[in-house]
Amino acid sequence: MPFDVSALFRPGLPAPATAPFKAFPPYNFVGGHNDAASVPVDALTQAATRVIAREGATLATYGLNSGPQGYRPLREFIANWMAQSAGMRDTADEILITSGSLQALDLVNQLLVGPDDVVIAEAATYGGALTRLAKLDVPYLGVKLDDDGIDMAHLAQLLESQQVKGKPVKFIYTIPTVQNPTGGVMPVARRHQLLELAERFGCLIFEDDCYADLVWTGTRPASLRALDAEAAQFEGRPNRVIYCGSFSKSLAPALRVGFIIADWPVLAQILPLKTDAGTGALEQMVLAEFCKDQFENHVIALRARLKTKCDTTIEALKEHFGTAAEFTAPLGGIFIWITLPENVNTTQLAAAAAKEGIAINPGAEWTVDGMSNRCRMRLCFGHPTETEIRDGIARLATICHREFGVPARISNFEQSGAEA
Amino acid sequence: MPFDVSALFRPGLPAPATAPFKAFPPYNFVGGHNDAASVPVDALTQAATRVIAREGATLATYGLNSGPQGYRPLREFIANWMAQSAGMRDTADEILITSGSLQALDLVNQLLVGPDDVVIAEAATYGGALTRLAKLDVPYLGVKLDDDGIDMAHLAQLLESQQVKGKPVKFIYTIPTVQNPTGGVMPVARRHQLLELAERFGCLIFEDDCYADLVWTGTRPASLRALDAEAAQFEGRPNRVIYCGSFSKSLAPALRVGFIIADWPVLAQILPLKTDAGTGALEQMVLAEFCKDQFENHVIALRARLKTKCDTTIEALKEHFGTAAEFTAPLGGIFIWITLPENVNTTQLAAAAAKEGIAINPGAEWTVDGMSNRCRMRLCFGHPTETEIRDGIARLATICHREFGVPARISNFEQSGAEA
Repeated sequence: MPFDVSALFRPGLPAPATAPFKAFPPYNFVGGHNDAASVPVDALTQAATRVIAREGATLATYGLNSGPQGYRPLREFIANWMAQSAGMRDTADEILITSGSLQALDLVNQLLVGPDDVVIAEAATYGGALTRLAKLDVPYLGVKLDDDGIDMAHLAQLLESQQVKGKPVKFIYTIPTVQNPTGGVMPVARRHQLLELAERFGCLIFEDDCYADLVWTGTRPASLRALDAEAAQFEGRPNRVIYCGSFSKSLAPALRVGFIIADWPVLAQILPLKTDAGTGALEQMVLAEFCKDQFENHVIALRARLKTKCDTTIEALKEHFGTAAEFTAPLGGIFIWITLPENVNTTQLAAAAAKEGIAINPGAEWTVDGMSNRCRMRLCFGHPTETEIRDGIARLATICHREFGVPARISNFEQSGAEA
Repeated sequence: MPFDVSALFRPGLPAPATAPFKAFPPYNFVGGHNDAASVPVDALTQAATRVIAREGATLATYGLNSGPQGYRPLREFIANWMAQSAGMRDTADEILITSGSLQALDLVNQLLVGPDDVVIAEAATYGGALTRLAKLDVPYLGVKLDDDGIDMAHLAQLLESQQVKGKPVKFIYTIPTVQNPTGGVMPVARRHQLLELAERFGCLIFEDDCYADLVWTGTRPASLRALDAEAAQFEGRPNRVIYCGSFSKSLAPALRVGFIIADWPVLAQILPLKTDAGTGALEQMVLAEFCKDQFENHVIALRARLKTKCDTTIEALKEHFGTAAEFTAPLGGIFIWITLPENVNTTQLAAAAAKEGIAINPGAEWTVDGMSNRCRMRLCFGHPTETEIRDGIARLATICHREFGVPARISNFEQSGAEA
C-alpha cells in the first residue's frame, strides 16, 4: 500500500487549499484590502529607517524590551489615540498587541467559549467571525439588525430565552461602529441599552471596532468599552467589554497588527494562549514611529479617499443596476451591503462572476444562519481603482442580467433611458 | 453578587500571567534571545529603507502580492539557502512562512494530533514543544538520547511497542542539528536509520531545525527532509519529513519569522489552519531584502561571536563549578546542557537563583517525563554579555553552594587551589 500522508491528518479539518496562490482577480470586491495609493510609503520608509537605526539591537530579545504584551511605544500610542477618538481610559497595561484582529478573535474565543456555550452576533456580520465560532463548535444566534445596529428588543428576547433554557449567553459579538456589512454606526443611546442588557443578563460584550477610524465625518461615538468604564469604576467591577481594533483598515492589512483592550485579569488569562512569542517587532516599531506624529493626518486623508471610492461605487451601482440594487449608503469603511431582487441568488452570482474575474461576497457567507440574505451581496471598494470599480460593476450587472434577468436593462444608455 | 469576569472563562485554561512585564532579569540564561551586538542594524536599516520605498504600496493587500504562503522573494531565498546549506530541493511553493517556528509547531500539531494519537520526542527536548503537546492532551513518549541524538534501538522498541498496542506513533519530533538542549548533531548514518524506522512504522518525522545555521564548523549534515527526498522521488511517494526553520536564532527572535517546508498536500491542509491572515509583511520584506546578499556573511560572523560566548561560558563553569558541572561542549547554538551532582535539584536552584536576578532552565522543564534530569540545567549564552556570563555563573555557583553544598569550593582562589 503506498504511503498516503493525508491518512495521518486529524479528522474534521477544514477543506484544504486547492492550489498555490497565483494572483488576485482583476475585479476584486472582497477582502479587507486597502487603497494602495493611500499607503504613506515615504513616511513609513522614513519611520522604518529611524526606528531600526535607533533600536535595531533590541531585536535580539523576544518581545524587544517590552514583554509579551507588545512594543510599549505602540501600546502608548494606541492608549492615547483611543482616549482622543473613542473616549477610552485604558493605559498601555490594558493593551495586548495581536497579529491582526483575527488573532484577537481567536484569543477571545479561546478564552471564553466552547461547544457548551452560546454566543450572540449581529444577524449579518463578519464571515470570518462566524467561521471561527463554527470551527470551535460554538452555537451562535443572530440578533436582528437595522441601520442603527442591534435591535435591542430582539436582543432582550434572545438573552431572556437563553437564560430560561439554562444556557445563558457568554458574550455578544458586535461591530457597533461601521458595522460589517451594513456600514451603519450604532448611536450612543442604543450603546447604553446594549450595556444595560449585558449587565442584566451577566454576559460580556466583544466589541470589534476595526473600521471605527474610517467614519466619514471623522467623529465616532464613544466605544462601548468607554461607555462602560465609568459605571465599572463607580461600581468597582471589571469592564464588561473586551475591545479589539486593528491597523489593517486604517493603514495597511499586510502589516498584521491588531490589539485587544481589556482589564488586566482578562489579558492575564489571554497571554498564555498567545503562543507565538509575540507579534512581529518591525511592524510594531515602524507603526509606533509613524503613528505618533502622522496617524491622524493619514487617517483624515484616507477617509476622504475611501469616501470618494464609496461615491464612485454608489454611482456605478445606480448607473448599472438602477433600482435593482438597494442599499443604505455606508457611514464609513470599505464596503456596501446591497440587496438585489429576491430572485437573485448571490451565491450563484458570485460563482458566475468568479469565472469572469470578479470577486464578490455573497450575502449568505456574511449571515449567521447561512441561509438568509441570499439576494444580498457585499462589495468592498477599498482596493480596486475607480476604473476597476466602474468596469467591474458594469460587468457584474451584465452577468447578473444574464443569470437572473436583473437589472432589467444593462447598458448605460438603456439605463438612462429607463430612468428618464 | 458582584460581577466576576473569571467565572466566564473556559475551564482548563493554563495559568494566567501574574503581572505585566517589567524587565528581564539581570543574568538572563533562559530563552532563545540572541547576541544584541550581532544584530546587523545598519544593513537591516538599509534593507528596510530600500524595500519599503520600492514596494510599500503592496502593503495595502493582505499577503502583499504573494498570497497566504508568504512573501515570495523570502520563500525563494529560503529555498536557495536550504538547497545550499542543507541539501534540500524544495521550491518556494513548498514553503509556508509562519509567525515564528512556534506557530509552525502549533500548525503541525493541529494538522496531525489529538488526544487519541501518540508522538515520540527526544527524552530531553525543547520545553515549549512539550507544553504544546500537553495542552492538546497528546500523549508523548521520550526516546533515549546521546551526544549523537536519538538512540535508534530504543526508538525501534517504542515504535514496535506502540504498533503492537494498536496505537501507532503519528510522528517523531526531533531536533537533529544542534539538539535542544544537548547541542549535539545527529550524524548522517543515524539520520538514515531514523528515516528507515519512520518508513517501516508508517509515521512522519517533524524536523525542527531552528539552530542548524549555528553549527560552529559552518557545515551541517543534510537535513532529514533532504535525505528523504531522493527516495520519495524514486518511489513516487510524499516526503515523510515536515521541516521547520526560523530566523530567530540566525538573525533575531523579535522578528517572528519561521517557516514550514513540506509537500504541497501537507501545506494545503495547513493553510486553512493558519487563521491570522498572514505573517507580518514588513518582517518578511526586510528579511528577504537583507538576506539575499548578506545572510551568509552575517551567519558566519554570528557563529564566531556565539562560539566565543560559548567558550566564555565553559571557562566560567570550569572556574566556578569545577568538576561539579559536567557537560559536552555543544557543536553550535546558544545553550549548554549541564549535569550537576545528583543531590542538586535544579528546579529549586532555579527558584533560588531567580530571587537574585539569575534565570536558568531547570532540567525537568526540558524533559519528556517532567521528572528526570532534575540535577541538570540549561544555560543559554546567546544574549548575556561576557561579563554577565562570568558574573552570573559565579553568582549561580555561590547560590548552588549555599543551597546544596556544591560546588565544594566557590571562590576563584579556592577553586584553583582545589584543582592544583
